[in-house]
Amino acid sequence: MKKHNFSAGPSILPQEVLLKASEAIVDYDNSGLSLIEISHRSKAFVDVMEKARALVLELLGLEGKGYKALFLQGGASSQFLMVAMNLLEKRAGYLNTGAWSQKAIKEAKLLDDIYEVASSGEANFNYIPKGYDIPSDYDYFHCTSNNTIFGTQMKAFPKCDIPMVCDMSSDIFSRQLDFSQFDIIYAGAQKNMGPAGTTLVVVKEDILGKVSRKIPSIMDYKIHIKQGSMFNTPPVFAVYTSMLTLEWLKGLGGIPGIEIENEKKARLMYSEIDLNPLFKGFAMKEDRSDMNATFNLVNDNLKDTFETMLKEAGISGVNGHRSVGGYRASMYNALPLDSVKALVEVMSELESKA
Amino acid sequence: MKKHNFSAGPSILPQEVLLKASEAIVDYDNSGLSLIEISHRSKAFVDVMEKARALVLELLGLEGKGYKALFLQGGASSQFLMVAMNLLEKRAGYLNTGAWSQKAIKEAKLLDDIYEVASSGEANFNYIPKGYDIPSDYDYFHCTSNNTIFGTQMKAFPKCDIPMVCDMSSDIFSRQLDFSQFDIIYAGAQKNMGPAGTTLVVVKEDILGKVSRKIPSIMDYKIHIKQGSMFNTPPVFAVYTSMLTLEWLKGLGGIPGIEIENEKKARLMYSEIDLNPLFKGFAMKEDRSDMNATFNLVNDNLKDTFETMLKEAGISGVNGHRSVGGYRASMYNALPLDSVKALVEVMSELESKA
Repeated sequence: MKKHNFSAGPSILPQEVLLKASEAIVDYDNSGLSLIEISHRSKAFVDVMEKARALVLELLGLEGKGYKALFLQGGASSQFLMVAMNLLEKRAGYLNTGAWSQKAIKEAKLLDDIYEVASSGEANFNYIPKGYDIPSDYDYFHCTSNNTIFGTQMKAFPKCDIPMVCDMSSDIFSRQLDFSQFDIIYAGAQKNMGPAGTTLVVVKEDILGKVSRKIPSIMDYKIHIKQGSMFNTPPVFAVYTSMLTLEWLKGLGGIPGIEIENEKKARLMYSEIDLNPLFKGFAMKEDRSDMNATFNLVNDNLKDTFETMLKEAGISGVNGHRSVGGYRASMYNALPLDSVKALVEVMSELESKA
Repeated sequence: MKKHNFSAGPSILPQEVLLKASEAIVDYDNSGLSLIEISHRSKAFVDVMEKARALVLELLGLEGKGYKALFLQGGASSQFLMVAMNLLEKRAGYLNTGAWSQKAIKEAKLLDDIYEVASSGEANFNYIPKGYDIPSDYDYFHCTSNNTIFGTQMKAFPKCDIPMVCDMSSDIFSRQLDFSQFDIIYAGAQKNMGPAGTTLVVVKEDILGKVSRKIPSIMDYKIHIKQGSMFNTPPVFAVYTSMLTLEWLKGLGGIPGIEIENEKKARLMYSEIDLNPLFKGFAMKEDRSDMNATFNLVNDNLKDTFETMLKEAGISGVNGHRSVGGYRASMYNALPLDSVKALVEVMSELESKA
């Protein structure tokens, strides 16, 4: 039986994507070869890479606007460093919304001066700071659109005279935004896009080439762009599976299509958290994430009962992050509404028992 | 029909590994979840990572000798930079045996002084330099054990008073060596170990922590070791498939077992190249690689005929690298002897036709 998979990442992927990816491992497109044992320079794989890159720009509405999409390795953790390597000359501004922002700040600080424009650290990051200033003489502004750990999500982005860089690892392709307000978007694949092992970087080309440092080749966006995202051997399987997921998303009507589904799931989930007296949401209402709902039991005595019931219902991956505790329901694009219904049912059954 | 796959990398993997990897994409170990949609912190995946790391040290005979195995991302191209970041304080010596060495030298030079101890560049890298000196006051010595492009392979390694670092991307796990003579071994997975997307680093812990620079977290071997190769989300599928390949290798008797097979394949291949008057080997005999045999047609008029015959025999991936031309038969661990027989048969059939 297929479980209800609320894992925070790596996380649920569409079943049809899993089936196609599985087939390609044995025989890719009736070629007599596995996808993972052919040259990345073969026409077969170059086509996959180009299709994946094109789908990204198409789905984000960024075609013909000076952006390039790259499928790199190393996760968002590599981008924390690469962004600074490519853009940081004197000083940059970072919005601190918790763990991921903090890691990004830490790595950038190794290279140059970083200024925290605002932080919600005093409230254990249960909200998104607003109303801060971004000095217009900084090299760039960096923010994290969604925090998986605390369950917060930026609903709006600041007006910004300088390049805006956004870590969208956990909510890319989940909601409509004007993506052209960003100059770099990066995202580890393992939430809404594919398996762990590749990192999407969408970069507006004209912001590059302005720092004085010598950038190591593997960290240089310009080199990756010039080489068509094939500067070195790409993570073939992760790119292919991401391409399948992007095709699946396009078939559902792209971001506008999936946004409707995501809103339904989030509405159902939060209405249960808000109405069920046994539970309490962690994040402030106006900033809570449509991707990751964080909540706690009001009375910890019910923990064992609740967790047994979850298990019996085939619900998996709802434990909260170790730094927050409680529960976290991650509702990425591929999670069916039925899975949220199943979880909500268990929560309401607990109420009727208690 | 399964093809004879001589691809230089990504390259052939054992059929039983492909089948198991394919199954895990749909349902991992009867868990009701795919391998690629579970948390990397789950017991199921932590077990995979730990098993893969342990198998590496076991197969290389490095257990209990102060080494750690890491499965990272970014390919050998990332290691060109990471090695220098972690070890280079003043000066290092590099042996230049062609493209891969040159790339390693280029990235290290960005950080500090690099001295080329020897090069075979004057002969388009068709041999391995010997008899060079490695100054004992350098930080480390770096070499590339096998060059896939030119088809050369180091048969012996220099005595070295300083840490020795070896890029073994294309011949790791293929032959018996005293692996404890190396302080760092690194290898992209996509030849003898698994699919593209993970990079093995085997490091002797006591050589770390001696440079004065601040190392970015994602580039710091010590951080990756401390985090059990899970500093950030690992490339789950590539690590799992590498683990399966290492298990397969262990089942065949480990490196001693596969070495016998590899020698048979290389002997058969090179005896055809040497005896068939239509072909000429590229690399010098004493340095030629058991992994990648490079050769040319003496008479280019036979090109079309030869390539049609190859295609008809189901032989794939024997085109030489663009910088050398001609042909290249890559005979990694998973390539069956029968595939080499099939290729040799075509070559000898061409002779009888010509």
